[in-house]
Amino acid sequence: MATILHRFNRLRLRYAFQLSSHAVSSTTAAERAKGDRVFLGCQTLCRQHRGISGGAGEVRCLPSAAPPRLPFSCVTDEDLAFFRQLLPGRAITDPDMLESSNVDWLKSVRGNSEVLLRPRTTEEVSQILRYCNERNLAVSPQGGNTGLVGGSVPVFDEIILSTALMNQVLAFDGVSGILTCQAGCVLESLSQLLEERDFIMPLDLGAKGSCHIGGNVATNAGGLRLLRYGSLRGTVLGLEAVLASGQVLNCLATLRKDNTGYDLKQLFIGSEGTLGVITAVSILCPRKPRAVNVAFLGCSSFQNLLETFQCCRGMLGEILSAFEFLDASCMGLLEKHLKLTNPITECPFYIVIETAGSNAAHDEEKLHNFLEKVMASSLVTDGTVATEDAKIKALWSLRERVTEALTHDGFTYKYDISLPVEKIYQLVTDMRQHLGDRAKNVVGYGHVGDGNLHLNITSPTKDPALLAAIEPYVYEWTAAVQGSVSAEHGLGLKKRNYIYYSKTPEAVGLMGNIKAMLDPRGILNPYKTLPDDLRLPSTPTRPSPMTSGHPQPLQDPPR
Amino acid sequence: MATILHRFNRLRLRYAFQLSSHAVSSTTAAERAKGDRVFLGCQTLCRQHRGISGGAGEVRCLPSAAPPRLPFSCVTDEDLAFFRQLLPGRAITDPDMLESSNVDWLKSVRGNSEVLLRPRTTEEVSQILRYCNERNLAVSPQGGNTGLVGGSVPVFDEIILSTALMNQVLAFDGVSGILTCQAGCVLESLSQLLEERDFIMPLDLGAKGSCHIGGNVATNAGGLRLLRYGSLRGTVLGLEAVLASGQVLNCLATLRKDNTGYDLKQLFIGSEGTLGVITAVSILCPRKPRAVNVAFLGCSSFQNLLETFQCCRGMLGEILSAFEFLDASCMGLLEKHLKLTNPITECPFYIVIETAGSNAAHDEEKLHNFLEKVMASSLVTDGTVATEDAKIKALWSLRERVTEALTHDGFTYKYDISLPVEKIYQLVTDMRQHLGDRAKNVVGYGHVGDGNLHLNITSPTKDPALLAAIEPYVYEWTAAVQGSVSAEHGLGLKKRNYIYYSKTPEAVGLMGNIKAMLDPRGILNPYKTLPDDLRLPSTPTRPSPMTSGHPQPLQDPPR
Repeated sequence: MATILHRFNRLRLRYAFQLSSHAVSSTTAAERAKGDRVFLGCQTLCRQHRGISGGAGEVRCLPSAAPPRLPFSCVTDEDLAFFRQLLPGRAITDPDMLESSNVDWLKSVRGNSEVLLRPRTTEEVSQILRYCNERNLAVSPQGGNTGLVGGSVPVFDEIILSTALMNQVLAFDGVSGILTCQAGCVLESLSQLLEERDFIMPLDLGAKGSCHIGGNVATNAGGLRLLRYGSLRGTVLGLEAVLASGQVLNCLATLRKDNTGYDLKQLFIGSEGTLGVITAVSILCPRKPRAVNVAFLGCSSFQNLLETFQCCRGMLGEILSAFEFLDASCMGLLEKHLKLTNPITECPFYIVIETAGSNAAHDEEKLHNFLEKVMASSLVTDGTVATEDAKIKALWSLRERVTEALTHDGFTYKYDISLPVEKIYQLVTDMRQHLGDRAKNVVGYGHVGDGNLHLNITSPTKDPALLAAIEPYVYEWTAAVQGSVSAEHGLGLKKRNYIYYSKTPEAVGLMGNIKAMLDPRGILNPYKTLPDDLRLPSTPTRPSPMTSGHPQPLQDPPR
Repeated sequence: MATILHRFNRLRLRYAFQLSSHAVSSTTAAERAKGDRVFLGCQTLCRQHRGISGGAGEVRCLPSAAPPRLPFSCVTDEDLAFFRQLLPGRAITDPDMLESSNVDWLKSVRGNSEVLLRPRTTEEVSQILRYCNERNLAVSPQGGNTGLVGGSVPVFDEIILSTALMNQVLAFDGVSGILTCQAGCVLESLSQLLEERDFIMPLDLGAKGSCHIGGNVATNAGGLRLLRYGSLRGTVLGLEAVLASGQVLNCLATLRKDNTGYDLKQLFIGSEGTLGVITAVSILCPRKPRAVNVAFLGCSSFQNLLETFQCCRGMLGEILSAFEFLDASCMGLLEKHLKLTNPITECPFYIVIETAGSNAAHDEEKLHNFLEKVMASSLVTDGTVATEDAKIKALWSLRERVTEALTHDGFTYKYDISLPVEKIYQLVTDMRQHLGDRAKNVVGYGHVGDGNLHLNITSPTKDPALLAAIEPYVYEWTAAVQGSVSAEHGLGLKKRNYIYYSKTPEAVGLMGNIKAMLDPRGILNPYKTLPDDLRLPSTPTRPSPMTSGHPQPLQDPPR
């Protein structure tokens, strides 16, 4: 812990130094006036308080706040003319049309971009990036804009590069189950297409109706099926990405095994658009299970829930496809804000178990035996089981709609933490005690099977004092048990400076070198993922790299 | 195909250029005399024919042959004194003790190293590499030395860094199933340890009695359980690696989910020791299945075998853990050379199907229903099923010992190809027709479920004319159907120059940049994985990089 605190103090010092020397952005009064419509993130707070260093009224910004704008070029009329010629009718500058792309889904982060580009092809993406790289224009790639860490919207005036029109399915092989498609395909559309062909997507998440598969891959999305089908690092077989230079990197293989050299696609999975723009993916899809059952159970303690999990893994084995939980506070929010009904008697903890298998009779027997055992031993106090689609969806919505219920409860501080499974609820209990009555609600839910807790703390309004009580407490608690401060949401803008709680300085340094190698000018999704102390300097005079057939290594140090 | 041929011709041109200007290595007459004891690889052939360019007796080397030795330093008495002080009794220079580390398992490649180092700790590995990097001494990391592409032995006089004494299990968590151990643990020992705790390793392969888990991860080994548990890219949760500079990169997380920055461990998985030396790994292990069944079946055609596979995936679903095949030629070699008995009537094709599940009665019922269906429809002509350990092992050995049987059949040309599953046997048929009676045997076996064919061609003795008929035919055939020229064996020394058949020049160029970033002097496993046209120049005067806390990017171009 001492080392972690030391690292963090060092980080804060560096950060404070940056703040005191930063160039204030040009937020207008009109833009600020929009603030009452949205919950504004810390970076807006910083931007509104000019002259941050010293004096009365100083606002001490958190590491999640935006850093100063880097000296990228600003979009000129000449740039717009280029984009309009390249993308007729698809280079958007109308502020009303830009609005939804400038603000994240949680309305917690607002950018100020004046250009939204909607390419249809990889070649168009390549031309856009080649141009932007040469002109030193920053680019914020955007899929369905459903991210939770401010990674999918611009921070300042970055050009928004949307994959919304890149929504073509390129191939599906019904023998191997391998799907190849453009990055902008919506996850739910792909699921529907596959279900008709007796397959399913290997991932599923609450945002499926909006999120793009390219964004899923770029953020290494986890979701509800990871327990069964593993992470995208195993199921994504290939991808195509456009580098900052405009160079197209075609790694779009459709093979389960390929050990010919380094696995470059892994660089782009989970790098949140900072190393390249993913334009297409190929993904291995499992067969659609013939039988699906969902059980919604109640437990009187988290210890009982953990024992139920252990028993479940043994007795349901290969048919277990999800083991999720929510606490009583989550259920209260679902009832209060979304008028959902608790299908069982009130309990401190609720479990959603899903089975998916090839033989309905076998699966029902396994589930029956399991339920009999956990009820007889009082591990589970009440429960209900669904086998029909409509009831399955209703039970799942109790778990999937917690995020939505929270948005109605006030300002929400969100944490997505990986922990050793036996510790995942202790953090909620400790946080509740730590905050006392300063928080409105402290709730926990998430993926027990993956050791992944979603800790959410609500407050009637944004409350810097509450935030100061939460952070760095939550990160220190996590680091002390070797957890991850971002299990599946990524780092984006909001969490970038907390990376040292989960990664060593050597590892972060190497990440910086990779960024410098692939995006030497740092135009791709700046201010995201990597911490501010690794920020690459903008070097407008540096020649554009990697324009020849073979990429050239960086010739200047990145810092 | 035209593009592929073009690329390959360009490669050959470059290669020829290198050969004509290379420095001849100092192979002694005594070393050459050893040639009658082992099957010597092409590189030895090259080394034996000095003055390769021009004139009578010229040998046109294949791209699999070793390139000229790069100008690394040679080991001095002072170096030996350092190693002996660092590793008392574990810096081996006795030629007899070095013998087995200088030759690969297939006895197809021989190195000429005079020093074998056997560290016990990560710190010792770090000190070795730091020293070697400063002294510009090349290093060949070695695990169980069971690789099939010449990746695990030195090519010239590289220092052998063995993980054999790094065989400590560091932790096993019986709740999560996460094992953490040093890199030198033997796979079979880990399997035994886990079985006692009701878990299994997520991978299994024929070489399990010798191979090290660090080597498995470094080569991204596939094996027999990939169909069920996925690749190591998903099951390896963390690793520790020592970079060429001696810097220790600790990414030894034990979390199922961690999206804090780029997933650096993926760089080392499958990079064959060219980017760093893996010193420890953490790996997610599945529960030991309660019931295992193995069926050994015969099919009258490959089309029937494929239809059996489709039927099997539908009816066995989640309990299917392996679907392997061998052809009648393989069975003939097993009978002839290993005196194994075919347990069923003779067929053109044999299948090994394994099920692994949590309920014996359910699994047997599923298997029974499946067998009834495929026998009734004549997809399968004969078969036998095993549920007892001894019989299961006997049936598995028919598949696992094909490699061994081949070593008794003469000189073997081995190919490990990924193809669309419906095409995997067509390559064998076409090759047989293409070679006519020039080959002794052309056999096919492998992992149907993964689309992975092991194509092997035997000859009474090494036969350059036969090889010229096989290559590049086999690679062109594979590339034409977007296959991979190395599904699971890696590229090592033998296949490095064939990388362009499966990867674009842009991708290979980027791999070169990654190599240059992590190992700027190229001391780690030189002549392996990357093609000769990306070979890094040795630059003895360049200062040692990455000695500070944060790695520094490369300041010189790698070529």
